[in-house]
Amino acid sequence: MSLDMAGTEGYTGRTLVLLQKYPVRVGDFIAVKTRESILEGTLMTRYDYADDQHIVVKLRNGYNIGINIDRIVKISRISEGSKPSFPTPPKRPSTSNLPKVTIISTGGTIASKVDYRTGGVYPALTVEELLSSVPELSSIANIDSEVLFSLYSENMASEQWSPLALKIAEKINDGARGVVVTHGTDTMGYTAAALSFALNDCPIPVVLVGSQRSSDRPSSDAAANLLAATLTAANADFSGVYVSMHHGPSDDTIAIHRGTKARKNHTSRRDALESVNTSYAALVKNGGISNVARDLPPRRNGATVPPKPSFEKRVSLIKFHPDFDPEIIAHLVSRGIRGIVLEGTGLGHVASNCQDLIKKAVESGVIIGMTSQCIWGSVRMTVYDTGRDLLAVGVIPLSDMLPETALVKMMWVLANASSRNEALRLMNENLVGEYASRRLLEENNV
Amino acid sequence: MSLDMAGTEGYTGRTLVLLQKYPVRVGDFIAVKTRESILEGTLMTRYDYADDQHIVVKLRNGYNIGINIDRIVKISRISEGSKPSFPTPPKRPSTSNLPKVTIISTGGTIASKVDYRTGGVYPALTVEELLSSVPELSSIANIDSEVLFSLYSENMASEQWSPLALKIAEKINDGARGVVVTHGTDTMGYTAAALSFALNDCPIPVVLVGSQRSSDRPSSDAAANLLAATLTAANADFSGVYVSMHHGPSDDTIAIHRGTKARKNHTSRRDALESVNTSYAALVKNGGISNVARDLPPRRNGATVPPKPSFEKRVSLIKFHPDFDPEIIAHLVSRGIRGIVLEGTGLGHVASNCQDLIKKAVESGVIIGMTSQCIWGSVRMTVYDTGRDLLAVGVIPLSDMLPETALVKMMWVLANASSRNEALRLMNENLVGEYASRRLLEENNV
Repeated sequence: MSLDMAGTEGYTGRTLVLLQKYPVRVGDFIAVKTRESILEGTLMTRYDYADDQHIVVKLRNGYNIGINIDRIVKISRISEGSKPSFPTPPKRPSTSNLPKVTIISTGGTIASKVDYRTGGVYPALTVEELLSSVPELSSIANIDSEVLFSLYSENMASEQWSPLALKIAEKINDGARGVVVTHGTDTMGYTAAALSFALNDCPIPVVLVGSQRSSDRPSSDAAANLLAATLTAANADFSGVYVSMHHGPSDDTIAIHRGTKARKNHTSRRDALESVNTSYAALVKNGGISNVARDLPPRRNGATVPPKPSFEKRVSLIKFHPDFDPEIIAHLVSRGIRGIVLEGTGLGHVASNCQDLIKKAVESGVIIGMTSQCIWGSVRMTVYDTGRDLLAVGVIPLSDMLPETALVKMMWVLANASSRNEALRLMNENLVGEYASRRLLEENNV
Repeated sequence: MSLDMAGTEGYTGRTLVLLQKYPVRVGDFIAVKTRESILEGTLMTRYDYADDQHIVVKLRNGYNIGINIDRIVKISRISEGSKPSFPTPPKRPSTSNLPKVTIISTGGTIASKVDYRTGGVYPALTVEELLSSVPELSSIANIDSEVLFSLYSENMASEQWSPLALKIAEKINDGARGVVVTHGTDTMGYTAAALSFALNDCPIPVVLVGSQRSSDRPSSDAAANLLAATLTAANADFSGVYVSMHHGPSDDTIAIHRGTKARKNHTSRRDALESVNTSYAALVKNGGISNVARDLPPRRNGATVPPKPSFEKRVSLIKFHPDFDPEIIAHLVSRGIRGIVLEGTGLGHVASNCQDLIKKAVESGVIIGMTSQCIWGSVRMTVYDTGRDLLAVGVIPLSDMLPETALVKMMWVLANASSRNEALRLMNENLVGEYASRRLLEENNV
């Protein structure tokens, strides 16, 4: 419980005393006179582990700074903090020869705005607002848009994947030449994998797009990522599920990653999403699609897709670590778990004391797959005897599949296979590019 | 249960029938005449998911190939497979002016050999055997050696960390100028972190070393890594716990990584270990130590170290994922867990449905820290309201600390702090370089 601090939220002790001396509130645009200079910016809320020695001000350049109160001579209010505003969307011609692209919004930073009162970021922007922020979209495609969810991506799970897959299939079967899905970057890789399986054999490009900086900030990557996603959805000659995010440090190159091989590998960089164990599918630069990988399935305009949107929730991703308590596996089995993806060490190992409970879980019908917490490289369980012991009890080696994709695939397989044997067969098959190296014999290059 | 297949282990169906026609056994060096050519190599065991269409032969160049039996015209035995052999260690002068370095062996690929009968790798080599494989070591240091364990690294945990820390402290307090620890690469990062905390304020360099290719293979990285580790232990002018492994694709450059910032990021590359969110500590090349980071603690020859080798086992590392069942947290609490490190998404998020059980766990006295499954970057929980909600219930944001290091630190802190408050304070303090960015205000550059 917190009291209403009358515009001094988060400030305690000496900073609270100081702020109460001046007619300023959190969210106000203020001038802080220190011994050395005058700083202007928005007074921000203080959070966790805040001392009572600093006030925090967001400068005009977007950066927050802490100012030691012992250096402060005077604080004055310039104005109330401004709110972000968006122009009205441009009128679009009622008919258009451009390809029809649907933008479905699920939330995420790309569809968010900064609350200048608290400094926090909230999911809020509608697709119409995105369109008005990026008017160039209208010259690429005839845009149709729909807000399906407004969620932070950590709250996206199978409950959202299923209706999202159905909605995309509906749009495809209704004639869309491409679909763009705005999504938070945190779990974008998981959702992209889920859509890859649920829309297996999808005839046109479905492109998830996110951003790492919200669209009302000057350094935002939202517009460039959205333009690249829309261009790919409208014009690419390949089909399937992809992710569109910045490529490397460049301002103007966007990478199109395969939906089953994309992983968020950095908390904050614009090029946080990377293709793991494979190359990107294509690059988008200067309004064109280039460097297209040769093994992508071709676009088939006009074809329909029968969605398979079911996922089994009773699947866990378990990361092994030293002193890992194998009893967790027995507990999950007692709770009715149907599948477990292990993130083992190196080539796919866990401690010997896990062996018995893994064996029992497999014997009770649970499907257990092995991935590597290394992220890069491939599980290869025939090299060391500890790996061979796990194979002997029926653990499935998942080669170079990402742990996150393996989780999603197992959730999909267990909901869609008609028998345990079919589930095992499907886990081993390369359905939508989740194995980059499945062609090679496991024995090669040991 | 498996029957003794009389030298045809793993082969079934048609391949078994074929092999039984010829006087060859697994492990034999054989010639296989196919329709196109003659292939010579060692007949290997077949493992998991093997079809009955191929036999597997390890060629002289070290690569395994599967040969389709329909192409086989004839198989003949050339000889029994050779076993690896090692020369006797060279005699060392009984006195030496070289610095005294202790090599402690715990196992791992660096101390392993290939079983030519099965193609598997087993922990086996003694330190004496390592010395005889790498005679140059004798010119760097006066080597003293001890085999403490012979374990695959997935079996290394706090039960081994404690005696290992005590043994290293004993050697330091006994006058060693440096200590080298051979270790499997799988959990090398975890053990390096454990030793960093247990030997906090260590006066000399302690260098963990592993290899990705066993030392009896031509492409082995064992010798180069071991030489670099020994050189660093003997001569570096910095102290603390490090890891010595190949740097990038170069054959002759070895990176020395900080013990709290090293992670195995590839299952099989020689440069699998990387420094995450910081630079390497130094490079070793052409027999010299270069590119030394400026912020390393100096060597203090002759100083002693009081080891703090206790670790609390009741700590878990939990990776969040979509459809994560938060009941696992309640279950761990009911089992008496004392600490949980969460691997959240992005800047440090979990789904809203985890909030209540996390709150209850903290209220019951469990310490919960947040890291990011992105691996790179830093947790920053003040950006989104979901992060702020977790901070409000007492989850500790662990900034740029690796999830694996955070687990080990929490295990160490809970065993060594005298109160919950001291434990919380220690988790936030930068003890041995586990936070690369702790100097910066959390609010900077939001």
